[in-house]
Amino acid sequence: SIDGQRLWDMLMAMAEIGPTANGGSCRLALTPEDAAGRRQLLDWCEEIGCTWRLDQVGNLFIRRPGRRDDLAPVATGSHLDTQPKGGRFDGILGVLAGLEVFRALHDQDIVTERPLELVVWTNEEGSRFAPAMVASGTYAGEFSVDYTLSRRDGDGVTLGEALEACGYAGTLPVGQPRLDSFFELHIEQGPVLEDAGESIGVVTGVQGMRWFDVTFSGQSAHAGPTPMRLRHDALAAAARLIDRLQTHALADDSGATKVTCGCLEIASASRNVIPGEVCLTVDLRHVDEAELDALEAYFGQELAAVGETFGVAITQQRIWASPVVDFAPECIAAVEQATHALGVRYRRMMSGAGHDAVYVSRVAPTAMIFIPCRDGISHNEAEYASPEHCALGAQVLCDALLARANR
Amino acid sequence: SIDGQRLWDMLMAMAEIGPTANGGSCRLALTPEDAAGRRQLLDWCEEIGCTWRLDQVGNLFIRRPGRRDDLAPVATGSHLDTQPKGGRFDGILGVLAGLEVFRALHDQDIVTERPLELVVWTNEEGSRFAPAMVASGTYAGEFSVDYTLSRRDGDGVTLGEALEACGYAGTLPVGQPRLDSFFELHIEQGPVLEDAGESIGVVTGVQGMRWFDVTFSGQSAHAGPTPMRLRHDALAAAARLIDRLQTHALADDSGATKVTCGCLEIASASRNVIPGEVCLTVDLRHVDEAELDALEAYFGQELAAVGETFGVAITQQRIWASPVVDFAPECIAAVEQATHALGVRYRRMMSGAGHDAVYVSRVAPTAMIFIPCRDGISHNEAEYASPEHCALGAQVLCDALLARANR
Ligand SMILES: NC(=O)NCCC(=O)O
Ligand SMILES: NC(=O)NCCC(=O)O
Repeated sequence: SIDGQRLWDMLMAMAEIGPTANGGSCRLALTPEDAAGRRQLLDWCEEIGCTWRLDQVGNLFIRRPGRRDDLAPVATGSHLDTQPKGGRFDGILGVLAGLEVFRALHDQDIVTERPLELVVWTNEEGSRFAPAMVASGTYAGEFSVDYTLSRRDGDGVTLGEALEACGYAGTLPVGQPRLDSFFELHIEQGPVLEDAGESIGVVTGVQGMRWFDVTFSGQSAHAGPTPMRLRHDALAAAARLIDRLQTHALADDSGATKVTCGCLEIASASRNVIPGEVCLTVDLRHVDEAELDALEAYFGQELAAVGETFGVAITQQRIWASPVVDFAPECIAAVEQATHALGVRYRRMMSGAGHDAVYVSRVAPTAMIFIPCRDGISHNEAEYASPEHCALGAQVLCDALLARANR
Repeated sequence: SIDGQRLWDMLMAMAEIGPTANGGSCRLALTPEDAAGRRQLLDWCEEIGCTWRLDQVGNLFIRRPGRRDDLAPVATGSHLDTQPKGGRFDGILGVLAGLEVFRALHDQDIVTERPLELVVWTNEEGSRFAPAMVASGTYAGEFSVDYTLSRRDGDGVTLGEALEACGYAGTLPVGQPRLDSFFELHIEQGPVLEDAGESIGVVTGVQGMRWFDVTFSGQSAHAGPTPMRLRHDALAAAARLIDRLQTHALADDSGATKVTCGCLEIASASRNVIPGEVCLTVDLRHVDEAELDALEAYFGQELAAVGETFGVAITQQRIWASPVVDFAPECIAAVEQATHALGVRYRRMMSGAGHDAVYVSRVAPTAMIFIPCRDGISHNEAEYASPEHCALGAQVLCDALLARANR
């Protein structure tokens, strides 16, 4: 069985790499902090004799040999990059729990039938480089290597340049190694498990999500003498859109419609200038693909309406769409059996967040394990999961991996 | 009579200092560009033998002696600083038209009874350092020198530091020299004169304005799994407020209510993070002080309402209030007589924009002259006033100054 204290100590040590003022972490993808986090992980892995390889988009594959190394490995993992003010668990738990499984097997001299592979996927968050999960998506064939290496951050730096600069550009062709199956442990990032007093979520799939870049082009003019009715106020148009989308999502009694505007920037902003140009990001999600289509259609209608109302030209681009995903029944069953055997309260549930498992599931049977996080808060420095829940999640992961690797 | 071509050439030459991509200018207050603009002006002034002095907040006083130098000078002027993407006329016209009056008098060997003073006021726009018109306000006793020197820009640099760095910190005690009277020529920055086919606005006063800094503190959380009803979305709250204020202002059939939100910033913004903190600026204006009070009260109510609706804590600070101003009847009359004598179409009108004349009017009889600008557009690179209107405005200014200086 795994060592919960050792796992917790690793989580707390990792959090000290790129610490933020209020107890969170900032390791934006492929920054020096992200590289330092990877280096810490590799030091721990090397202590127990693991070897590792890097692919062309920086995905990191850490191998624990089995008895049958001719067979594809049973894999686990997640990501080490964070949001600008991220927490200590999102992604990191999945990586370090995988390592804790390796350490526990090492201590107990257990050799699995199939080899095990711990994977750290590059740029999962989508915060420095959009879209999210781009490197697991490349691994799974959704994006070309060229597309991925040419993603740009807000300063114009490409993902490829950042990869070279931080020392994690590899040579392994993307798509290798092929995996027998993939299991990802993660915090829920929402309040469902905590509210229900359940300790484990057996994740059966992931909701669909679509990302948009919207530009509102009005006309900047003086705040004082310009009559309200002659304005072309790009911010007023953006605000109306945000408000309409909020109201629409809140009106869905099922709670399944999710809308978020995370970034809004005014060009050459000044207090006494009517905003002439605004860029806005929109994130639409739903567990049902047809409902997501309807939500996108509503969004398009409202865009046209606010453009008309405020005399503002609007352009929008859908930069990412990740369809609703169903995980593999045999992997879901492995997680459910491991959970059931531990006698804890759990539920089968969909994930509201995207995860690397979304793309990996296209090329290998996949499932996920959730643990609760306090108040359902994530993407926030205050993100917290208890040592007990982290240990429990790692134990479920361990048991599912062993069952699968020794089948 | 003044030389319209020479005035136009000076305007176009000044626009080349800090030029922007689309034909405007960027000379934010007390930057190297602003300093270069002042240097150009002083070169022109020195050519015609004018002397100059700087006060402690960087206001620049350029003297043309009269026959009675024991008397207080009749003054004109405006500002040389611009918005981030400002035009070629806002402020600059008032300064260069004053210089053109001096040049015309110089060419024609005319000596006035009272001396003339051309003033360049520091940081009128309020874009780099809030509030606007802060240095003319200091001159007039509205703000202390300490207050003004300690204003900070977005990078934390104080006005005092910027003044030292750009070489325009002076020693003349603020409030000197005392002025006999003040006349400011400016573009209208709105569409009224152009729409009516009138060439001159005889400005009788300025509407009241109030500036606010608002902070919305919600809770950042993940865009995917966080249920809409459990969110504390700071941007959704700000958007609702902006929309309510817009709707309220548009509903005023008189058109006198003006509301502008010029700056909005999300702390640590990321596409898939519900915004936890948003800072917003609000600019409220009205020609009637009681109506402005009512507008501020409405704003306060709506702030409370959106805070409640979105579960977001809101703090607001009124950082500036400039009451409705009435200019001096004798100065208004001097402008009206000069305009009337030229036989052009004009109207008496209130100004929608704040101007240095607002504060100067507290310590010296003051009036303003407006000329039309194309499409009423200002605080925009596309700002334009015709050479004919610029020359006409300068001629009215010249005639009003002479009448006043020789009275
Ligand atoms: N788990 C996580 O935070 N993923 C980022 C992708 C998303 O926005 O859902
Ligand atoms: N004239 C001008 O642009 N003044 C700035 C102060 C204001 O916002 O009205």
